[in-house]
Amino acid sequence: MPVHGGLWLCEGAESLGLLVSSELEKRWADSTSTMDSICQYSLVPAGKLFRPILLLDSAWAVGGDPISVLPAAAGVECGHVASLIHDDIIDHDEMRRGRPSVQHKYGINEAIIVGDALLFDQFAALAECRRRGVGDRQVASALEAVASAGLDVCRGQSLESELTASRRFDASTYLQVARLKTSFFRGACESGAILGDGSPEYVAALRAYGESIGTAFQIHDDLLGYVSETQTMGKPKISDVQNGRITLPVIVAHESGSAADKELISAALFADSDPLHALAVLGEVVDRTGGLAAAAQMARDYSQEAKNALTKLPPSPSRQRLACLADAAVSRDC
Amino acid sequence: MPVHGGLWLCEGAESLGLLVSSELEKRWADSTSTMDSICQYSLVPAGKLFRPILLLDSAWAVGGDPISVLPAAAGVECGHVASLIHDDIIDHDEMRRGRPSVQHKYGINEAIIVGDALLFDQFAALAECRRRGVGDRQVASALEAVASAGLDVCRGQSLESELTASRRFDASTYLQVARLKTSFFRGACESGAILGDGSPEYVAALRAYGESIGTAFQIHDDLLGYVSETQTMGKPKISDVQNGRITLPVIVAHESGSAADKELISAALFADSDPLHALAVLGEVVDRTGGLAAAAQMARDYSQEAKNALTKLPPSPSRQRLACLADAAVSRDC
Repeated sequence: MPVHGGLWLCEGAESLGLLVSSELEKRWADSTSTMDSICQYSLVPAGKLFRPILLLDSAWAVGGDPISVLPAAAGVECGHVASLIHDDIIDHDEMRRGRPSVQHKYGINEAIIVGDALLFDQFAALAECRRRGVGDRQVASALEAVASAGLDVCRGQSLESELTASRRFDASTYLQVARLKTSFFRGACESGAILGDGSPEYVAALRAYGESIGTAFQIHDDLLGYVSETQTMGKPKISDVQNGRITLPVIVAHESGSAADKELISAALFADSDPLHALAVLGEVVDRTGGLAAAAQMARDYSQEAKNALTKLPPSPSRQRLACLADAAVSRDC
Repeated sequence: MPVHGGLWLCEGAESLGLLVSSELEKRWADSTSTMDSICQYSLVPAGKLFRPILLLDSAWAVGGDPISVLPAAAGVECGHVASLIHDDIIDHDEMRRGRPSVQHKYGINEAIIVGDALLFDQFAALAECRRRGVGDRQVASALEAVASAGLDVCRGQSLESELTASRRFDASTYLQVARLKTSFFRGACESGAILGDGSPEYVAALRAYGESIGTAFQIHDDLLGYVSETQTMGKPKISDVQNGRITLPVIVAHESGSAADKELISAALFADSDPLHALAVLGEVVDRTGGLAAAAQMARDYSQEAKNALTKLPPSPSRQRLACLADAAVSRDC
């Protein structure tokens, strides 16, 4: 089990993570087919399990039973991993979580199929909550939240491709992409609150929390690519540069930098054939122009917005942990 | 609106098809994004709409209201089209339904994302049935059937890749692939019966019907590739040969043919660089050795099995149409 610094520093998060891990390990264990065993490969050992933990705590915070909603928590990880597998095809990423990506290890065709299977499994897992005593109304209502989140994730990926292709340094579109792409955070919190039978007000609060923490997480994740201390990420840092992704630090640097800086940025993102050199150039420019600091501040602002949403909920250990997780989303180790 | 001979010869099927078409046309009409407009492109004009019609009639046959379950019917088409879009990436197919495939027209990356979006939309559509008066219990229970069908479709695709790679002429694996790959037929019938609030006995009967008609359809679809009159298929006939797909007529021909025939088959499938020549050779061998006739007979047998399952249902126009559709699945024009 890898250590997940920032996240698991929140009291109790590690226990919830272990609960989800063990559920995920069982999920595809009877793998008799190639597809099943690739599903297992992609899910085990598990990643940070950020979204499943949010789902469990969202259910718990509104008075629900985390054990009853455990299948849905495992499911949201299946959906997330599905999107990573398909993303790695799109981005030609060969590594994921420190191991060969599915598309690199098993080929693009299997990666497409396995991603699809995990998407379906997200919904199969949601349905399984009925057997643990979750009501039909909750399951049917969570279905809507999860499907809508999935659609938004796809919209975010598509919009991101457009932004990349346009080569525009557009903060507003970037933020829209960040919000849409991380909709599984929103889906996890909203569906968790629904499955835990929370009131509409609590559901709305946790939905808002999920949307803000997701956006904070994405901004933070993107800026980590330019911070030299985080060499331990499973995903190669050069991927964003290689794919010409236009992230917030770069957008701010482009806005506030000199004409020469703008040229440096464009050359690094769109013309440099040496991604390590391009990354070094970008890292210097985003730091010097304050792009990095501005992006970090914006990530913290969204994290604070997430915490503000929690004030609508009654105090509980879960609410406290959700606040801690909002901090963890923008911490150095996350 | 294209004409769909075999299917729409069944009394009333055309009206149901028009109902679904108009639902699908509305579904992504407010497309403001690239992704939404590609979803629209892939769904409109609609295909045969076999699965949605089966869903509507399955609901109707057990006493449900087809209008209430119309979103789910549109949804099963979204799921089916998603699998076609991803299949076309895997098979490198440039044409689909007589038009450029999504991957050919918009690129592989968009095709992956749009396929994912349509998979999620299948579930979003299912949830919408609640607003038309379908109960939470029915929606939650249909969720399980639809998710399980989707997982089996993926298993079928993966197993098919394995069969192709193995170059084994294995009828039993082929039939397993045919059954799994067409699980959306089963899912449509089962979820339709559930959403229509059918008794467990009726649900089981329509599930069995769906599984048999799906297998019949796949066997029939595969043998059409070797029947020269069907030049009108949207998908190029050479695709199966180009991809070295081992289908039932070829398997039977390989079993019953001479050593020379076996060599002809292997050369055509695995070595011939001219797919049109390979197709001509295979067409001759599968015809002469009785492979084509045997496969056609097996398709009819599964179609009959589907009709037998219907006898568990009370007589109704829908039951009658479902029987007609089982014939249409193995008819020349389908």
